[in-house]
Amino acid sequence: MNVPVYPLHKAFGVERAVVSTYQAASGAGLDAMRELEQQARDWAEGKPLTQEIFGRQYIWNLFSHNSPQYQDNGYNQEEWKMVEETPKIFEGPFKVAVTCVRVPVLRAHCESINLQFGRKVTLDEVNSVLRAAPGIRLVDDRVNNRHPEPQLASGEDEILVGRVRLDQSVEAGYGIDMFIAGDQLLKGAALNAVQIAELLLEK
Amino acid sequence: MNVPVYPLHKAFGVERAVVSTYQAASGAGLDAMRELEQQARDWAEGKPLTQEIFGRQYIWNLFSHNSPQYQDNGYNQEEWKMVEETPKIFEGPFKVAVTCVRVPVLRAHCESINLQFGRKVTLDEVNSVLRAAPGIRLVDDRVNNRHPEPQLASGEDEILVGRVRLDQSVEAGYGIDMFIAGDQLLKGAALNAVQIAELLLEK
Repeated sequence: MNVPVYPLHKAFGVERAVVSTYQAASGAGLDAMRELEQQARDWAEGKPLTQEIFGRQYIWNLFSHNSPQYQDNGYNQEEWKMVEETPKIFEGPFKVAVTCVRVPVLRAHCESINLQFGRKVTLDEVNSVLRAAPGIRLVDDRVNNRHPEPQLASGEDEILVGRVRLDQSVEAGYGIDMFIAGDQLLKGAALNAVQIAELLLEK
Repeated sequence: MNVPVYPLHKAFGVERAVVSTYQAASGAGLDAMRELEQQARDWAEGKPLTQEIFGRQYIWNLFSHNSPQYQDNGYNQEEWKMVEETPKIFEGPFKVAVTCVRVPVLRAHCESINLQFGRKVTLDEVNSVLRAAPGIRLVDDRVNNRHPEPQLASGEDEILVGRVRLDQSVEAGYGIDMFIAGDQLLKGAALNAVQIAELLLEK
């Protein structure tokens, strides 16, 4: 989320974000990916589904993120990480409501993101900021319905951003919706480490 | 969405909803379900994937809903239906931001829903309204991470509602998050027709 939202936050001031995730098996590790693959083979052969990692059917299913849930507020750790870490990364207050979900995708996470801004924006301004921001590629073809998908993001260094629209539920120009996809095995881990190292060397 | 949100709207006044969907192949018809199943078999056998309905890989993937998109505002017809029809069904203004997504699930749709209320509520009040509302079953077990899933909703008459939490991004008590699952082949079509007929006969 941070890669496309940070430049928008700097440009327009994000007052609040509402995020729903579509997270792949890969985020839970190689064994989780292998189990999902095995379930597809089991299903195709009409066999009982292997259920050792998540203890449930994953193929043709989706479920609340598998990290532990806080009994007091109902958030799970994956969600709370975003609530707590985003203000630290953005170096300022940042309000985010988030629901994390595992979907039967092997690799690359997606997020549906709604942003409310402190000032009025146009879609052109939003797209200009996104085009100029590092680490992002706009994939937003309304005619052919080509937008960010896990299959397009897998193995890519960039976060794909699309479905960028003015939010119809707030005063015109004070919010947007967008949908993003990124290969978190790259952006979330290895590539990020390299890019942070590069930034430090530049300083 | 309407089944759990309408009673909450009547009780507390929903000022705005932000919704992201996780829609199954079944909503696109039997041929779409069959193609997704065929892709699983193709994948398991290492064969090229059949791509006649959606023109893309669906297994291990997800994508923006396949309904046509309005070129002016970027919404697709599935989303716009919710924006336009919900106020008619609720018989009053209702603001909703929505992003519709197809996920590789055979049957039953899910939705991640964020609601902002016009007055302060407690989680107990919200759950009381949901428990008393017709057509809903609360599935909200934080300890065992049992929440609404397509597999639990398939073939069920009721809409499953869970992950009910106070939204941390607004003033405490002025919003909630929840996650729902429902078998739209029942609730969206046949069962609904029966229930509407029953209501008419009662009048």
